[in-house]
Amino acid sequence: MKRSSEEEEELVQGVGPWDECFEVAVQLALRAGQIIRKALTEEKHVSTKTSAADLVTETDHRVEDLIVSELRKRFPSHSRFIAEEATASGAKCVLTHSPTWIIDPIDGTCNFVHRFPTVAVSIGFAVHQELEFGVIHHCTEERLYTGRRGQGAFCNGQRLQVSRETDLAKALVLTEIGPKRDPDTLKVFLSNMERLLHAKAHGVRVIGSSTLALCYLASGAADAYYQFGLHCWDLAAATVIIREAGGIVIDTSGGPLDLMSCRVVAAGTREMAVLIAQALQTINYGRDDEK
Amino acid sequence: MKRSSEEEEELVQGVGPWDECFEVAVQLALRAGQIIRKALTEEKHVSTKTSAADLVTETDHRVEDLIVSELRKRFPSHSRFIAEEATASGAKCVLTHSPTWIIDPIDGTCNFVHRFPTVAVSIGFAVHQELEFGVIHHCTEERLYTGRRGQGAFCNGQRLQVSRETDLAKALVLTEIGPKRDPDTLKVFLSNMERLLHAKAHGVRVIGSSTLALCYLASGAADAYYQFGLHCWDLAAATVIIREAGGIVIDTSGGPLDLMSCRVVAAGTREMAVLIAQALQTINYGRDDEK
Repeated sequence: MKRSSEEEEELVQGVGPWDECFEVAVQLALRAGQIIRKALTEEKHVSTKTSAADLVTETDHRVEDLIVSELRKRFPSHSRFIAEEATASGAKCVLTHSPTWIIDPIDGTCNFVHRFPTVAVSIGFAVHQELEFGVIHHCTEERLYTGRRGQGAFCNGQRLQVSRETDLAKALVLTEIGPKRDPDTLKVFLSNMERLLHAKAHGVRVIGSSTLALCYLASGAADAYYQFGLHCWDLAAATVIIREAGGIVIDTSGGPLDLMSCRVVAAGTREMAVLIAQALQTINYGRDDEK
Repeated sequence: MKRSSEEEEELVQGVGPWDECFEVAVQLALRAGQIIRKALTEEKHVSTKTSAADLVTETDHRVEDLIVSELRKRFPSHSRFIAEEATASGAKCVLTHSPTWIIDPIDGTCNFVHRFPTVAVSIGFAVHQELEFGVIHHCTEERLYTGRRGQGAFCNGQRLQVSRETDLAKALVLTEIGPKRDPDTLKVFLSNMERLLHAKAHGVRVIGSSTLALCYLASGAADAYYQFGLHCWDLAAATVIIREAGGIVIDTSGGPLDLMSCRVVAAGTREMAVLIAQALQTINYGRDDEK
């Protein structure tokens, strides 16, 4: 996408066109983290969404409302929000050319409900359908992951760098079970895990937060990640962070990433991403923009 | 086990008979954590043990040597040590009536190799075949879990309390893959996971450290844990911590725990532990004391 001359000038001066948006996203992710940490000490009212494993709490709604209302206040010209709980209530997931905020108020809601300390807030930002930055706050460990297009990825100020591993037999691979739990879906989920273990991957980890698994990948703590059944709000911010850490985010078919396709392979190297994609059998979760 | 009158007197005065041992274990676990954290930033020489997934590094050996040599120095009358790497080199795993230290220098070696931030040091202590205390240091998050028989379990000074959940359909369940990766073993591992997901458990997590998974259980962050293929050094310290947090640690048959049997079910409640045990198909890993 060609930049305007005004944007070009800002870049030359070392100030990106979306600096203020990025700073506000960081502040909101930190505020959201405080709310979530406090809520972790309190009793929770839990509801289910698509399945018994697809949970939502009043904190998900509260955090999402805070983030969206503050963004509307600070950036009145921004009218496009893709946010997990609004989407569950029927709002459409559409990525247009307008500045679009893509928000997961609590990634790892099941972990949150159980006080399992792997819970994140994720805020991504796209313009002209291109991801500009991502901010992810690991609330319980107080780690802030950020990535901005062309400016690198960081965790609490430390630059992130993906693993350079290309050999599946030396890989630590991350995945998530996904919300569908019917017998056929589970069979394919388990069969995919079996294929990777047969291929002698060092291990497979399931931590209950797609977003944080992707952050671990960005930081080089794992070599690959794949999932069927994640959503654009799980993926948007993390995708920028991984790419800026030198990693690859593609479709499970091996083709380019489609943010709305509910499936992804990410890895430190293209070789590894392709090996994982080749090993996987597809689970069809439909598309975020057709729901 | 009946206590001697001297031990009884010490307990009445609020000083347990193994106070000094406990304090030394805490100090050593913290020192080991420093070494491991430093090693996480360095290149690693990795060797394999029983399978390509069963890894060991020079840091495992270095930490184990430190802990054992310091304990020998501080407690010259203690001659019984069960330690992971010594056992891999042929030392026998036997629990006698003598004071016995049970040590895992790095639990989560595969995580450690990949710099996946879920790595622990575990030091357990048994006398008359009864576990007296356990000290586990989550090195990367700097959390110190401790449990002493009759004196409660704590994480960084905060008292731990297990979950009271009895309904498998509301449970977060933890497990680990185990070192055997032959097709038959993997089939049973995956089939066990499938059974729990069919029973509509909220989720299954695999974090790559048995010891830390058991600590999460002790802290109420999960409702159950099961595994085939873990060892007495993965289990000893954590068992005291879970019991002192109000939880249950049993054999996968539903009977009493056998520390040497390489299998375990742990849960916040007996009902949950029994439900898990009933759902599992056995994977035979032999016994630690017959290797």
